Amino acid sequence: MAATWEESVADSINTVYLLFSAYLVFVMQLGFAMLCAGSVRAKNAMNILLTNVVDAVVGSLSYYLFGFAFAFGAGTNANPFIGTCFFALADIPNSSYDYSFFLYQWAFAIAVAGITSGSIAERTQFSAYLIFSFFLSGFVYPVVAHWVWSSSGWLSPSSSSLLFGSGAVDFAGSGVVHLVGGIAGLWGALIEGPRVGRFDAFGKPVPIRGHNATLVVLGTFLLWFGWFGFNPGSFDKVLVAYPSSADQGNWTSVGRTAVTTTLAGSTAGIITLFGRRLLVGHWDAMDVCNGVLGGFVAITAGCSVVEPWAAIVCGFFAAWVLIGLNILALKLQFDDPLEATQLHGGCGAWGLIFAGLFAKEEYVLQAYNSGDSDVVRPYGLLLGGGWGLIGAQMIELIAIVVWVSVTMGPLFYALHKLRILRITIDDEVAGLDISSHGGYAYHNHPEDGQPRYYADYNRIRG
Amino acid sequence: MAATWEESVADSINTVYLLFSAYLVFVMQLGFAMLCAGSVRAKNAMNILLTNVVDAVVGSLSYYLFGFAFAFGAGTNANPFIGTCFFALADIPNSSYDYSFFLYQWAFAIAVAGITSGSIAERTQFSAYLIFSFFLSGFVYPVVAHWVWSSSGWLSPSSSSLLFGSGAVDFAGSGVVHLVGGIAGLWGALIEGPRVGRFDAFGKPVPIRGHNATLVVLGTFLLWFGWFGFNPGSFDKVLVAYPSSADQGNWTSVGRTAVTTTLAGSTAGIITLFGRRLLVGHWDAMDVCNGVLGGFVAITAGCSVVEPWAAIVCGFFAAWVLIGLNILALKLQFDDPLEATQLHGGCGAWGLIFAGLFAKEEYVLQAYNSGDSDVVRPYGLLLGGGWGLIGAQMIELIAIVVWVSVTMGPLFYALHKLRILRITIDDEVAGLDISSHGGYAYHNHPEDGQPRYYADYNRIRG
Amino acid sequence: MAATWEESVADSINTVYLLFSAYLVFVMQLGFAMLCAGSVRAKNAMNILLTNVVDAVVGSLSYYLFGFAFAFGAGTNANPFIGTCFFALADIPNSSYDYSFFLYQWAFAIAVAGITSGSIAERTQFSAYLIFSFFLSGFVYPVVAHWVWSSSGWLSPSSSSLLFGSGAVDFAGSGVVHLVGGIAGLWGALIEGPRVGRFDAFGKPVPIRGHNATLVVLGTFLLWFGWFGFNPGSFDKVLVAYPSSADQGNWTSVGRTAVTTTLAGSTAGIITLFGRRLLVGHWDAMDVCNGVLGGFVAITAGCSVVEPWAAIVCGFFAAWVLIGLNILALKLQFDDPLEATQLHGGCGAWGLIFAGLFAKEEYVLQAYNSGDSDVVRPYGLLLGGGWGLIGAQMIELIAIVVWVSVTMGPLFYALHKLRILRITIDDEVAGLDISSHGGYAYHNHPEDGQPRYYADYNRIRG
Repeated sequence: MAATWEESVADSINTVYLLFSAYLVFVMQLGFAMLCAGSVRAKNAMNILLTNVVDAVVGSLSYYLFGFAFAFGAGTNANPFIGTCFFALADIPNSSYDYSFFLYQWAFAIAVAGITSGSIAERTQFSAYLIFSFFLSGFVYPVVAHWVWSSSGWLSPSSSSLLFGSGAVDFAGSGVVHLVGGIAGLWGALIEGPRVGRFDAFGKPVPIRGHNATLVVLGTFLLWFGWFGFNPGSFDKVLVAYPSSADQGNWTSVGRTAVTTTLAGSTAGIITLFGRRLLVGHWDAMDVCNGVLGGFVAITAGCSVVEPWAAIVCGFFAAWVLIGLNILALKLQFDDPLEATQLHGGCGAWGLIFAGLFAKEEYVLQAYNSGDSDVVRPYGLLLGGGWGLIGAQMIELIAIVVWVSVTMGPLFYALHKLRILRITIDDEVAGLDISSHGGYAYHNHPEDGQPRYYADYNRIRG
Repeated sequence: MAATWEESVADSINTVYLLFSAYLVFVMQLGFAMLCAGSVRAKNAMNILLTNVVDAVVGSLSYYLFGFAFAFGAGTNANPFIGTCFFALADIPNSSYDYSFFLYQWAFAIAVAGITSGSIAERTQFSAYLIFSFFLSGFVYPVVAHWVWSSSGWLSPSSSSLLFGSGAVDFAGSGVVHLVGGIAGLWGALIEGPRVGRFDAFGKPVPIRGHNATLVVLGTFLLWFGWFGFNPGSFDKVLVAYPSSADQGNWTSVGRTAVTTTLAGSTAGIITLFGRRLLVGHWDAMDVCNGVLGGFVAITAGCSVVEPWAAIVCGFFAAWVLIGLNILALKLQFDDPLEATQLHGGCGAWGLIFAGLFAKEEYVLQAYNSGDSDVVRPYGLLLGGGWGLIGAQMIELIAIVVWVSVTMGPLFYALHKLRILRITIDDEVAGLDISSHGGYAYHNHPEDGQPRYYADYNRIRG
Repeated sequence: MAATWEESVADSINTVYLLFSAYLVFVMQLGFAMLCAGSVRAKNAMNILLTNVVDAVVGSLSYYLFGFAFAFGAGTNANPFIGTCFFALADIPNSSYDYSFFLYQWAFAIAVAGITSGSIAERTQFSAYLIFSFFLSGFVYPVVAHWVWSSSGWLSPSSSSLLFGSGAVDFAGSGVVHLVGGIAGLWGALIEGPRVGRFDAFGKPVPIRGHNATLVVLGTFLLWFGWFGFNPGSFDKVLVAYPSSADQGNWTSVGRTAVTTTLAGSTAGIITLFGRRLLVGHWDAMDVCNGVLGGFVAITAGCSVVEPWAAIVCGFFAAWVLIGLNILALKLQFDDPLEATQLHGGCGAWGLIFAGLFAKEEYVLQAYNSGDSDVVRPYGLLLGGGWGLIGAQMIELIAIVVWVSVTMGPLFYALHKLRILRITIDDEVAGLDISSHGGYAYHNHPEDGQPRYYADYNRIRG
């Protein structure tokens, strides 16, 4: 009646692996919060901290009530476009999904709105934020997740009828998570327009530096830490042996995925370090942080299916994609305070293409067919795997851009027309914290003993 | 002679699960440190940071020498009120406890004093802190842990003679940890009195804002991360199959516990967000953080034995308990700088009651009888489980309030009478950092190149 | 053809254990970054943050390309001094090493340069940093790792021909990691000389306090968290049963190692707290943090082979080693802004000696012979284990000091002679951030709404 010993062991190991991966992905929410806070001016720090907390708490309820159902609710009459069961965790756990899988996916869902919050930072009404965040993480994102990650999705690489005989390989979500967040941010930032003072009367950009670089580095490292849950954790199960290998299994692939992730981010960071040194003449820590993150975003689609050397190629180009798009954004007077559109959108799109070019046949079979080497399926174009995979990747890319544009674009436009999207100029100059959140994030208490004023101390003591 | 394969596998999986959970619980100490630091004025930041480090290092030695023994030292002549063996880890490991269990419990023990440190922040002598911290985490807390969590404790839900046939269900310690810390803080804050300037001459409260909201959010997210070790980790073992289910075991319950924890905290955060918006007119990030933590505190007792929907109920009321007690505290001119009494005490008490109302029979048997569905025991009153459980919960609540009051109350009073509890008014106005810790936490070095003074830079360069 | 069930289970458990340990070790890089940033002046914060990020990203590529090969590349014609295969992960995974092992060792490698970065903080040219970091983590450190941790190394405790029949017991690297980093820092700080203003005209030290104590505490706790990966993780495998025990295995030792680590750090912290109170008259949080870290550094060599009570002895003396060396450094006008030489070098050396004195026979066999109690090998001198082990420890200590001195000393000297090591006095006074990194880490944006200037807000609104 009870689970067998073998089932119990497998379930225990896989649960420990997946739950602790979920905890790491959750840390990314903290990483985003610190990265965002450090990248904005002090007068808006409280606002962006709150949006990141709100993404998590609102996302918990919406993902529990319907987000998870839209994404993974594939019952007997499965729908390739949207899930239709498991609302409010009904029928969970079942033979497909345990609570740990829900928690893991929840941590992904709350990350999406966090990405977009960067694009519209420092000028968005908080009530508008609540509406867009709820809509994005509760509906727009879960639908895309269903397409690619549910076995009944039309883009799924593991369904019974694969698009182009392949399906899209977006292992941990360069497209599903980052491109979705980036395109949503693109529309938000476009419709809101640049921050006051970001471009001068002649259209020349005026740098607006974040108030705290330490927070940016803290956030970047926390995101790196969390990405070890995001990418290697996406195997869902670690205890899967490969039939054609004497000693390999998902445990090998999980480790390799951690390595490719590390190499891609590191390469992108190095390229950005030297590239920006050549371009601007100094060693810029903030740019290196963004470069590292761009490399992570790009490798996320193909992390499990490429060789370590290919991850270096991925990171190399991700850095140039980011540098190039940042230059373009300045030219177009496009203002995204966190570069979220360029970073998550641009590098996310590159990541989808990269996986289509460099996916290795053996690893694709490991990631999607439990290492069954008798299966035949397309793989990376440059490795001789044909056009099936790269075709499916391009379809996913286009589908995401279109879907997010037709949902989030009108939403932002409606909020704009209703005048509840952007704050007033007065409030923007004063800062969101004082106008919407009851006070600033930092307080110096000049009325009593001050860090800098030893004189006060001497007066009081003496 | 060696452990069998099955034993080795089980011990390995369970140890990895428990040790990494312990590491997460340890992160809560960092979370408390950041939350506390951000919530006080800059002039006292160094002091409260030090108290949190000291809780950890002093707690390590005291818990090693006798705290663990008082809590779990149940040998052949077991005592229902206090443990009597395993001092300095003698006879560890044994068939009941391995080192990993000690480490897990150590991480809990150091958290208790951290809670109380918030209540008496900004006005307590450091030497008094050392005394109370040592007494609380080395004696007062371990005794309560023995009552509820040792199999020989008189309140234990898994002993041979259960109180009311039930024992108290305080799975991860809404009562054992949070109520203990909160009641200790209540007496400390009461006996010390409010901070200088907290209430004006007419008794009206004057807001004293913390110096750094970013640290508060950092601390909150770190506590959330740590709570994934605190609650789901409290099963101690993950590899336990339930006899009456074909595919469920502790691995299912561990995941469900992570989900209930997340939902309770998130719900409390949302309710606080909107509740405070109605009450004070702005979106307050600090209140949302406290709300989230209040939800976590409340679900901690019942996290493993309630349905996800019930966790939402738990968080809903936890938010109102916190909001209500905060209003009451202002009326009574009670000053607890971190709201620790209200949050850990109030929501901890509600958590004990909640578990008595909503515990589900099946889950109680999973958490305390390895899923043996033939056992009959009381469960949640509102689910038809009778008065046994809620009665035991109320007894635990009352016993903790009385025990902590008769131990910590006299201690604080004695320190007060000996004039070593509260610092002088002069020192309080100047700040603890300059008077007791040799300097402030923050330094600007005005003697040389200053962040703000580009002029200096130009002078030097030019 | 596929791995057996038993192999798959073992590989899965061991991989989860090792990978998550690697993630924790990676967090130490963040811990170093925060500790370093908080310990320097604000004008150099961006610089030291960048060096810590650069250690990670440059270390990823160099360790992938050749560092891992130098350390662990022991093929058929193994060399006791340097590894010769596995460049760019060729032939990985194999029967000895999987990707997870590479990732774990990578996290160690990037930590070494982070240690040294503290010694030369606030006065080193960034391009010199790139060169030394690349050389140290890509060559100097991997060679030492090969000596001690590769089974073909001449100091290895698990090779076929053990030095003095024992080999050096440096379980997680008091010598391999910390002494290497500390000695490198010694030469860097010696050759660069003290920071401007560190000693006055009469040679008396002038305190230069770090700009942010909160970051120091944040970094310390993160390092503590990471050390749970560093020390307990160094068993590499958790699923190893001991033949002479009915219920013990590596799972027991892993937990015990976490306990000894905790006790050593805590004891050192307490001793430092009270020792510094006696010496300087106040309770100094920064010193306690360094004391805790000194205890961790010292226990790292013997963490797996000593009793918990011995760990307390270890921490006790580690604190005095640190306090004594700090006093000596002031006398000698030696300026190491992070005390890295004293802390990692001094306590690392003490850790090697300590393991030679207190290693317990049973635990040495558990750590290096899978608990085979029929093996005879030297153990701690004070426990009656003879001179073999302490002799090997002293040889490792001397070998590391000599090797790092003859490699890093000339490198720093050459950089010095080429005038690319130290920045100019003007740049040092202005700060590295403005002179090399394009701006400061912190920005206040006085042009608009300021946290402190409510007046502005009122003016704008009114």
